[in-house]
Amino acid sequence: MTDDRVARAGLSRLVEPADPRVTDAVSQAGAGRLYDELLTRRAERGLTGDAAGRVASVDPLRELEQAARRGIRFVIPSDAEWPTQLDDLARTSGVNQMVGRPFGLWVRGPARLDELARCVAIVGSRSSTSYGETAAGEIAAGVSRDGRAVVSGAAFGIDQAAHRGALALGGPSVAVLACGVDRAYPASHRDLIEHMAAHGAVVSELPPGCAPMRMRFLARNRLIAALGCGTVLIEAAIRSGALNTAAWTESLSRPLMGLPGPITSAQSQGVHHWIRSGAATLVTGPEDVLEVVGDVGEHTREEPREAPRPRDRLSSRHRQVLEAVPLRRPADLESIAATAGIDLVDTQSALRHLRRCGLAVHTEAGWRLGESTRHVPHVDDHAP
Amino acid sequence: MTDDRVARAGLSRLVEPADPRVTDAVSQAGAGRLYDELLTRRAERGLTGDAAGRVASVDPLRELEQAARRGIRFVIPSDAEWPTQLDDLARTSGVNQMVGRPFGLWVRGPARLDELARCVAIVGSRSSTSYGETAAGEIAAGVSRDGRAVVSGAAFGIDQAAHRGALALGGPSVAVLACGVDRAYPASHRDLIEHMAAHGAVVSELPPGCAPMRMRFLARNRLIAALGCGTVLIEAAIRSGALNTAAWTESLSRPLMGLPGPITSAQSQGVHHWIRSGAATLVTGPEDVLEVVGDVGEHTREEPREAPRPRDRLSSRHRQVLEAVPLRRPADLESIAATAGIDLVDTQSALRHLRRCGLAVHTEAGWRLGESTRHVPHVDDHAP
Repeated sequence: MTDDRVARAGLSRLVEPADPRVTDAVSQAGAGRLYDELLTRRAERGLTGDAAGRVASVDPLRELEQAARRGIRFVIPSDAEWPTQLDDLARTSGVNQMVGRPFGLWVRGPARLDELARCVAIVGSRSSTSYGETAAGEIAAGVSRDGRAVVSGAAFGIDQAAHRGALALGGPSVAVLACGVDRAYPASHRDLIEHMAAHGAVVSELPPGCAPMRMRFLARNRLIAALGCGTVLIEAAIRSGALNTAAWTESLSRPLMGLPGPITSAQSQGVHHWIRSGAATLVTGPEDVLEVVGDVGEHTREEPREAPRPRDRLSSRHRQVLEAVPLRRPADLESIAATAGIDLVDTQSALRHLRRCGLAVHTEAGWRLGESTRHVPHVDDHAP
Repeated sequence: MTDDRVARAGLSRLVEPADPRVTDAVSQAGAGRLYDELLTRRAERGLTGDAAGRVASVDPLRELEQAARRGIRFVIPSDAEWPTQLDDLARTSGVNQMVGRPFGLWVRGPARLDELARCVAIVGSRSSTSYGETAAGEIAAGVSRDGRAVVSGAAFGIDQAAHRGALALGGPSVAVLACGVDRAYPASHRDLIEHMAAHGAVVSELPPGCAPMRMRFLARNRLIAALGCGTVLIEAAIRSGALNTAAWTESLSRPLMGLPGPITSAQSQGVHHWIRSGAATLVTGPEDVLEVVGDVGEHTREEPREAPRPRDRLSSRHRQVLEAVPLRRPADLESIAATAGIDLVDTQSALRHLRRCGLAVHTEAGWRLGESTRHVPHVDDHAP
């Protein structure tokens, strides 16, 4: 029987990724047996028939050797380096009739894939705004600072902003390509991709030399979703391809997060739709993301809050009297008691307490608010 | 026993709104009996003691007559005009130790309160941005167009933008004040408030002449939340008073909606927090709001979508071949079959189909994409 690694390398050359007929056959019969059947042309017609028609022209053993000479390794499920989170792909019903684990991953770069278990996928629009790119960079930086790798697709826009945000902090970043790892797509991201190959990892289920094709991007997106322990969607118009990665994340039951934006931005429409439907959790920064993907209790986001104001420490009765003390023109005890709706004795005792706290001042003309109260900013209240 | 209406008018003068000790006593003993106890000073010490100390100085019957002469009516729970949605306030545990129905509502304006059952509350920051104000105006206009009234607090910022958005369409708008309905707060909104008194309604549980106080705003917010059949939160910083209205909405189990904004805007922080926690549903415009507050099936928001592309109608096999057809330099049948991973016969039949659809062109040099395919915009895809 053909060796598992050789068979998987051959299959990655012969059939398109995530084809359910083939991934099913591999999981049932094993890659070696399926490959043997192709070699002996015993496979039925259909897609395996297509592959059988071309199997004689490929030489996976030689491909593996050539790749190794170029620093490209082929990681398969039985390897220690195999990122086991990808096994979840065998248990989902898939997206767009695509389904299944990759036969293996062609990899360039020093990062070990089995050590990426806690990484975060960041994806979004290729025609992003500077708002989205800034947010992607900040979230990637925060994820890196937490010791996690950032996974994305090396595309224009949000993808590259996310990779750069991680790399800027010296954190590892993983690019999953829809073409061979020896190719740069898009071509203008060659330096970025080479940098990740030197310091992180560049990954593809397609063998070296393969060209990017539309359906390969859709299959690639499932690897991004499956490698991350959660996916952050930064900007995505209504028909953005990034929503395909979101759908994969959902089908894998991994947490999906969405960064909101102005309702006037078409690039945020798709994200808002997913948050609105409840499929995505709203996140506004790295703290939110780490809270969602973190182990329970590891990151509990501190709620932003202002410093307590002096009036926060008052009893409700004292506060009620304070509310009745005028800002500018002083008022007498009776008038304050009537406004507060509290009797004279209690009002007087409350006013004395407020004077001790510096919140009220007693002048010859009566009581008015103290300086400290007058300068408490009434920030943004539906109550003035 | 004191007449219910007179007793309620008297109580609205003597005790602060939403005080649980008083609202409990009214719901148990009735307003008339409680008022009699105050008059005969049989009430215990505490807040009712405060009221008892001042009960002799008020004349609610005369107040009602004077108010009526000024066009101000006092609507109580036994009136046909009573907005019964306020009764839910008797069934919630309240917010900030405030709880209970108002004794009655002092009202100016032609709108009948019992006809407001389907109205929508729109609230937000007083220090709003033009982004938030535009959104508030558009949502209010959409709500008005649906025949619903907009309820808000006549404050600066989002409140006034919401009122104006409704009024601009000639729709009714209801202002709930934290002072007497004969007063204008803020003073610079006098024209706006007078306009609502002439065309909609200006409402308060405080009798004419009362001044706005901090705690009265907090009590007022519960009326805004209870009058609406849902509340839209447009902009709110972390400690915004509008979040108090949101808390009342939640305690009333009414739908709470939040409009997202840029993560960089402090004015959206509070809204994002409530969406993130799941307490508020994300809305991006009036259609979303009407879908949330509408009767089931009344408003089902059509998902925004683009026109289908020609390739959307292809079978997956034809699409796979289309993907393998080069954009510029023509390729021969064998090369396309190899790229697509499909056998020669099927590839040829697919190419013929694609030519009939205008998606592929056959030249002397081979096959390339047709014009219609070349001009399909690849809008914003994670797949190119």
